[in-house]
Amino acid sequence: MSDPVATSAVVAESTASLPSGSWRSRVAAKKAQNKAAIPSAWLIPPSVMAAAPFSRSADLTKTNIVLECGILSASELEITEKYNARELLQNMATGNMTSSAVTLAFSKRAAVAQQLLSCLTETLFDEAQDRAAFLDAYLKREGRVLGPLHGLPISVKDSFDIAGVQSTLGYVSFLDHPTPSTNAALCDILLELGAVLYVKTNIPQTLMTADSENILFGRTLNPRNVALTAGGSSGGEGSLIAFRGSILGVGTDIAGSIRIPALCCGVYGFKPSTDRVPYGGQTSPALHGSPGIIPAAGPLATTLGDIELFIKAVIGAKPWVRDASAHAVPWRELSLSSSPSIKPILTIGIFPEDPLLPWHPPVRRALDGAVAALAAAGHTLVPLNNSPITSTSSAWTQALEFFSLDPSNTAIQHILDGGEPMITTVAQAHAHTQSMGPPRQASILDLAAMNVDRAKYQNAWGKSWSENQLDVLIGPGAQHTATKLDTYGLPGYTVIWNLLDYPACIIPYSATSKELDPDATGYPITAPDPPYDPVAFDGAPCAIQVVAPRFHDEECLRAARIIDEVLKG
Amino acid sequence: MSDPVATSAVVAESTASLPSGSWRSRVAAKKAQNKAAIPSAWLIPPSVMAAAPFSRSADLTKTNIVLECGILSASELEITEKYNARELLQNMATGNMTSSAVTLAFSKRAAVAQQLLSCLTETLFDEAQDRAAFLDAYLKREGRVLGPLHGLPISVKDSFDIAGVQSTLGYVSFLDHPTPSTNAALCDILLELGAVLYVKTNIPQTLMTADSENILFGRTLNPRNVALTAGGSSGGEGSLIAFRGSILGVGTDIAGSIRIPALCCGVYGFKPSTDRVPYGGQTSPALHGSPGIIPAAGPLATTLGDIELFIKAVIGAKPWVRDASAHAVPWRELSLSSSPSIKPILTIGIFPEDPLLPWHPPVRRALDGAVAALAAAGHTLVPLNNSPITSTSSAWTQALEFFSLDPSNTAIQHILDGGEPMITTVAQAHAHTQSMGPPRQASILDLAAMNVDRAKYQNAWGKSWSENQLDVLIGPGAQHTATKLDTYGLPGYTVIWNLLDYPACIIPYSATSKELDPDATGYPITAPDPPYDPVAFDGAPCAIQVVAPRFHDEECLRAARIIDEVLKG
Repeated sequence: MSDPVATSAVVAESTASLPSGSWRSRVAAKKAQNKAAIPSAWLIPPSVMAAAPFSRSADLTKTNIVLECGILSASELEITEKYNARELLQNMATGNMTSSAVTLAFSKRAAVAQQLLSCLTETLFDEAQDRAAFLDAYLKREGRVLGPLHGLPISVKDSFDIAGVQSTLGYVSFLDHPTPSTNAALCDILLELGAVLYVKTNIPQTLMTADSENILFGRTLNPRNVALTAGGSSGGEGSLIAFRGSILGVGTDIAGSIRIPALCCGVYGFKPSTDRVPYGGQTSPALHGSPGIIPAAGPLATTLGDIELFIKAVIGAKPWVRDASAHAVPWRELSLSSSPSIKPILTIGIFPEDPLLPWHPPVRRALDGAVAALAAAGHTLVPLNNSPITSTSSAWTQALEFFSLDPSNTAIQHILDGGEPMITTVAQAHAHTQSMGPPRQASILDLAAMNVDRAKYQNAWGKSWSENQLDVLIGPGAQHTATKLDTYGLPGYTVIWNLLDYPACIIPYSATSKELDPDATGYPITAPDPPYDPVAFDGAPCAIQVVAPRFHDEECLRAARIIDEVLKG
Repeated sequence: MSDPVATSAVVAESTASLPSGSWRSRVAAKKAQNKAAIPSAWLIPPSVMAAAPFSRSADLTKTNIVLECGILSASELEITEKYNARELLQNMATGNMTSSAVTLAFSKRAAVAQQLLSCLTETLFDEAQDRAAFLDAYLKREGRVLGPLHGLPISVKDSFDIAGVQSTLGYVSFLDHPTPSTNAALCDILLELGAVLYVKTNIPQTLMTADSENILFGRTLNPRNVALTAGGSSGGEGSLIAFRGSILGVGTDIAGSIRIPALCCGVYGFKPSTDRVPYGGQTSPALHGSPGIIPAAGPLATTLGDIELFIKAVIGAKPWVRDASAHAVPWRELSLSSSPSIKPILTIGIFPEDPLLPWHPPVRRALDGAVAALAAAGHTLVPLNNSPITSTSSAWTQALEFFSLDPSNTAIQHILDGGEPMITTVAQAHAHTQSMGPPRQASILDLAAMNVDRAKYQNAWGKSWSENQLDVLIGPGAQHTATKLDTYGLPGYTVIWNLLDYPACIIPYSATSKELDPDATGYPITAPDPPYDPVAFDGAPCAIQVVAPRFHDEECLRAARIIDEVLKG
């Protein structure tokens, strides 16, 4: 395997003699500009960088590398390591911490993360300090917080527009776009709630692959093990949050793009039902207005409580007033108490293994462990049988038809427009598509037939859900953990919930162990799935996915909390 | 003007010598079958029929014709004339009335209505009596009602499938369809709530025109004035409810199909946001799975309270459990009291006149009167200016692009498949389409561009709504009242709220008066709008449309209640 850092940096080599205006020179200029945006005092000393344990595939989150950099003070290390978002907010609201201090601490740590992991695209460190100072002064002057997210630095995926900041999605051709003059609706809302925007995070070229690599910003690495993918498309978020360079961030998900980096990097990630979190005002790589599967925006965080914090604050801000695509559906507060209408004891379906996307041994062990713990806690577990509706590979095939509904091949065209090369996984997928011959151009009639099939599928799931009297179901978020770079398998176990538009939450739980999961033989490997490698994957996070029906975001997160408490027991 | 009854009956003439299997013989057989389904004791005496005041264009709802028929007993007349649905339910729940008596009364009156107005398609009189007897026995045995609609006969548009009953939509070709073996989701829910299904109601051929005429079931007439259209596509509901042959019914609306018959016949009609009332399990005349504007199901009734009753009962039954297309969004109970978060004083926008669809004099007078009454009651009225977003003619053009997204022309093909002729308005529209040359076959790219335009339009409306700080807006439901047959104008004032997916409620208010609205000159007539005729339209009901943003169904009905109380004050 090639050195991932070198891979991600390859296009920036030898910039001196590049013809001006070529994609190489434009990339070099953008990289230089972004590097310059990191204060020199925040640059990792060359000696520390040289000693970084990349080659040992160590879990960077368990090393002392941030301390060794000498960039963060002791209190900044504490701010970034000892608190969740709610605790930080509490400390800021009561004056124990200032937003300036918290923002500076996370800015520094994000800068360190960027140098190690290429997890950022744009940085707003100066603007963030100004904003934090404003919020500190506001609190002092008014004696109250600006809003429920007062002072908290929040990271956002590169696609979320911020006025005055480029939204390139890593495309060379998007360097020509005018810099956005308005914020995405969600960014406006986060600011209205008191948050500080300080970084935008890295994504894959096209946003439609699980390795977050692009030509402008390189490849995001997984801090748990740089030899394994960080996932994508919200890979920068997963990596940055796992490294605690952000305590709360925002991604988007049309096939797993929040949940895949969450499970690869070992953090929480929640894909709500579509359009409960406002999606409007983002820069998109895809055909605008494309019919079919609608993506969802949602949070990633280090605790489930912070996921809830984000969702309740954002939906509480009535996002539909700013963004007509957001559903005007207020959050329903569900009690955890044992009122007659509330079940503290959950009926939990167990999602079955798709024989075509078999589970790697640690994935199976994590799920078995979760099932045993939940049963021991008194919950009712209902194994679901394999049936046509549980086929995640079929769900992928069905979803792919919708994803392919673009005769212009817009996301690829943006690559060609910039003259840049394709990243490995995009090139692989593109070559595969090309090998299939000229694509069938779906017609309106084809789309209508697809819509009918999807509606039938959704009804079949609804029927099964009722018959099994489920509150939620649990299963893996993927057939594997984070895989070796550029080998992530079919995202069937995530995309099925996009096809159904069911809310789904990733809870980190357990980890791959070469001792506990030694057996790489004896289970079928189905192309294009990657093989299990107990040594290479040792230590990779495992996760449980908690799923509820469409619009049952409240029930999904309530069950996730109950389940999380059992698993973290 | 030709005699409307003769028009609607033309295809049934002289059936004796028809070749078997021809569309004429099939229509004749179906008509004979339906006529035979009405008990002979419920047939209107020929002398009464001959004296029916059709030629005088009288308001049948103000004549004694039902009494003169001698079919309903005094108590049956009282049951159908003196109570709203809530009062009937209350009387049944307390044992003052039986469901058997109430169902029989409305069955008889519906049979009378059918003979005068052709407002029904299928009748279930025997099944309804069995069902009512079951409910009466249930109440007696259990000491409680089966559900909140216990014992109430409810009419449904022909498109709603009922097991064992044909769903032809008036198409000859649909006579070949297997009789449905399952109920539409909404019918299942109504039964679960305790309702009695007793009739299905008439609709136009294709469902896409405002005159509810088709080859199998003839033309539905407007009981307020048989020389004026009953509206459509839920025209049978509007006519039947105005005649009090039903106290509560269900229609569907993709361009105004609930609201147009409501305003033509002078009853209440509510089009909710899409998919709050379950839509699944209907027979559709259109391309299944067609992308674009989604229709909504909703109630028609003689009082606003009964509209609320229906909506709360249906959404309270969690329709999403049975129908995956229904949003799992519980009804929010809004208080009418003056709590801090509730505004008993409304800010009400006044929708402006589209110069291209100018208001007939009584329409303008009704709106002016409502505005004055609401201002006098202390509400804040905000006149909205004409702007691109208030152009109802543009909204129609935009909606028509979505309606035309069917390269198979499915609804027309069903006509051709049966060999039947087109009704007048369908033939007119079809000829117009043909005259435009071969239709442009929209591609996925075209659809995507349409989606982008629609999203922009929705956002522009959201912005305007916020800036004006509106609770609701009011305006006419059409530029005219019920028009002469086959001349209903462009449904711009209704379709705009389908394009935006905003809930909209029709409140009957005032009526055309040749004395108060004498002036047929001096205002521009724009083809294809019908001219105003003060004599022909005299007495035609007027109406106010109350509109709220998407998913604000609760706010829409709350404001409608406040407004209705002021107007009925």
